[in-house]
Amino acid sequence: METVQIDLGERSYPIVISENLLAQEQTWQALPRAASAMIVTNDVVAPLYLSALKQVLNRQYAQVHEVVLPDGEAHKDWQTLNLIFDGLLSNGCDRKTVLFALGGGVVGDMTGFAAASYMRGVPFVQVPTTLLSQVDSSVGGKTAINHPQGKNMIGAFYQPQLVVCDLATLDTLPERELSAGLAEVIKYGPIADMAFFAWLEQNIEALLRRDRAALAHAVKRSVEIKAWVVGQDEKESGLRAILNFGHTFGHAIEAGMGYGKWLHGEGVAAGMVMAAELSRRLGLVDEAFVVRLRSLIGRAGLPVRGAVIDAGDNAGRYLELMRVDKKSEAGEIRFVLIDGPGRAVMQSAPDALVREVIDGCCA
Amino acid sequence: METVQIDLGERSYPIVISENLLAQEQTWQALPRAASAMIVTNDVVAPLYLSALKQVLNRQYAQVHEVVLPDGEAHKDWQTLNLIFDGLLSNGCDRKTVLFALGGGVVGDMTGFAAASYMRGVPFVQVPTTLLSQVDSSVGGKTAINHPQGKNMIGAFYQPQLVVCDLATLDTLPERELSAGLAEVIKYGPIADMAFFAWLEQNIEALLRRDRAALAHAVKRSVEIKAWVVGQDEKESGLRAILNFGHTFGHAIEAGMGYGKWLHGEGVAAGMVMAAELSRRLGLVDEAFVVRLRSLIGRAGLPVRGAVIDAGDNAGRYLELMRVDKKSEAGEIRFVLIDGPGRAVMQSAPDALVREVIDGCCA
Repeated sequence: METVQIDLGERSYPIVISENLLAQEQTWQALPRAASAMIVTNDVVAPLYLSALKQVLNRQYAQVHEVVLPDGEAHKDWQTLNLIFDGLLSNGCDRKTVLFALGGGVVGDMTGFAAASYMRGVPFVQVPTTLLSQVDSSVGGKTAINHPQGKNMIGAFYQPQLVVCDLATLDTLPERELSAGLAEVIKYGPIADMAFFAWLEQNIEALLRRDRAALAHAVKRSVEIKAWVVGQDEKESGLRAILNFGHTFGHAIEAGMGYGKWLHGEGVAAGMVMAAELSRRLGLVDEAFVVRLRSLIGRAGLPVRGAVIDAGDNAGRYLELMRVDKKSEAGEIRFVLIDGPGRAVMQSAPDALVREVIDGCCA
Repeated sequence: METVQIDLGERSYPIVISENLLAQEQTWQALPRAASAMIVTNDVVAPLYLSALKQVLNRQYAQVHEVVLPDGEAHKDWQTLNLIFDGLLSNGCDRKTVLFALGGGVVGDMTGFAAASYMRGVPFVQVPTTLLSQVDSSVGGKTAINHPQGKNMIGAFYQPQLVVCDLATLDTLPERELSAGLAEVIKYGPIADMAFFAWLEQNIEALLRRDRAALAHAVKRSVEIKAWVVGQDEKESGLRAILNFGHTFGHAIEAGMGYGKWLHGEGVAAGMVMAAELSRRLGLVDEAFVVRLRSLIGRAGLPVRGAVIDAGDNAGRYLELMRVDKKSEAGEIRFVLIDGPGRAVMQSAPDALVREVIDGCCA
């Protein structure tokens, strides 16, 4: 079993990575005592893992409640969040009740925000069952729901007590979601570690056939980089924003297409190509780097071109959506760009140049 | 001008107390720079103070937006909170936008929760215009909205940058709300400072006729006690719960009658008498203390008896509502009781005894 520690003073916690952790009693033994726990999951994950988790938690908590949400980014809204609050209140859950997020990024983000807000904060645990949530969204305490006018606009920084990455749960992941998760894995290369990027170029086929040893390394290295970044900048006052490489363009695609049409990882994949291309046009990286990144993204089964989200002024629509990005200030879009392979910077760019990138990169 | 400091490390902030602070430029000068600000208020306060605040803030922020909410506890819900998010997003507000809560406790709690959640946290300022919010709710960072099944069930601990108590704004406060504010002022005596309680017994008429010097002392001493408590226990893991003296019974009255029928301070007033009576029946205080507290509450124009919230099993309904109190654990209600005048304790009590108190104390 691999353990990566997130160092945030009294909010520190471990991420454990291994096979078959979910059903083992010892995985959960260090958690805070409480009379009750609640598992939050969705209708796709529930038939696969809910009963196993419930069974093992029943040994530790007198009552284990459950809330099963509808699956998908389209449901990452207040109405669905309220199903969690309804469940907590109707079951008499108190300030010590421990919430367990069993599922992917949407379940983790919503459960985390519910835990942050219920009675002004109860403990919670991330049990990510998708590659994307294991390598990215379950780690670091970003929680949120979407607003019709923007993704993840309403949320909290709220750290879990524990993150449990059970690699065996990736066996049931649809291929498309495995690829989407690889987008966030690939991301760590250009922003922080080109040796890891080179390793991914060597091992992308092993990852796609779910080789456990390859997955274990990819998850561990991703989480190590994320832990290093989050440990320095928990609330994204600076450095942490580099983890959003590809996300500014990606969020525009997701919002422009309607949440759920493109998976988050797919938007990030095309967004990384666009951000790399913008970096190239600003003279920060060379063409060879863009080609290399595009190639790995394509081999991972991911889109290398952005979507056309407006039949008229497509670039204008991208710009409009990107201006409500959380990194924007006073209406100026701030991009995460690559300032030489393995190093990210935050920077704005002339609208005209951004338009050229969009026009050149959209299918 | 009086200043009381809340000491919470990097989350420390001042509470300033004086007359006519609102329209003075220097009141706001130490706030963080930003391109925009948003004032959140309600339809009762807006005609009184919105234009004055907007005018002075316009000198400091390029854009000053406003959102006017419907007035009252009945609107302290998600739907109304969302009006703030809609306003922020449609005006292109970013992570640096400063929110100003101009109004009473409901406006302050909702604006605070909106500030805690918008883009995972933006700065905010409390500008309380009611006595209750000046002496209690604007100080200490508790923010929340109600859930149909319980008051303040969804929220965050999130500290403001500054609290501005302009005593002149109390001139426009309806008498009933002035009295409701006095309930929270009176509260500080039994839990922490019987010398202050004796001062209130001497000065209750001056406070009711809005004598500025008397109000200044009452607000300052209340805030000092609150600052002392919050500085030791920001997130209510222990001591802070004593500030909820009278609130367990009071919340049951508010919820049982339907939010808005009884003002929060009125519920707290009757709730303090009930909690004092429970303390007496448990042998913690004598009859003379209960009589003295009841007398001051009555002189302040506040109810000294609880409401009948159920024509059948009234005590049973109280117990049911009190079990969803945030202080409850594993279904056991934990009361803030008076363990000798000037000292509070958290304690549970036998249901039968609580029933006797309710039966004896309800109109």
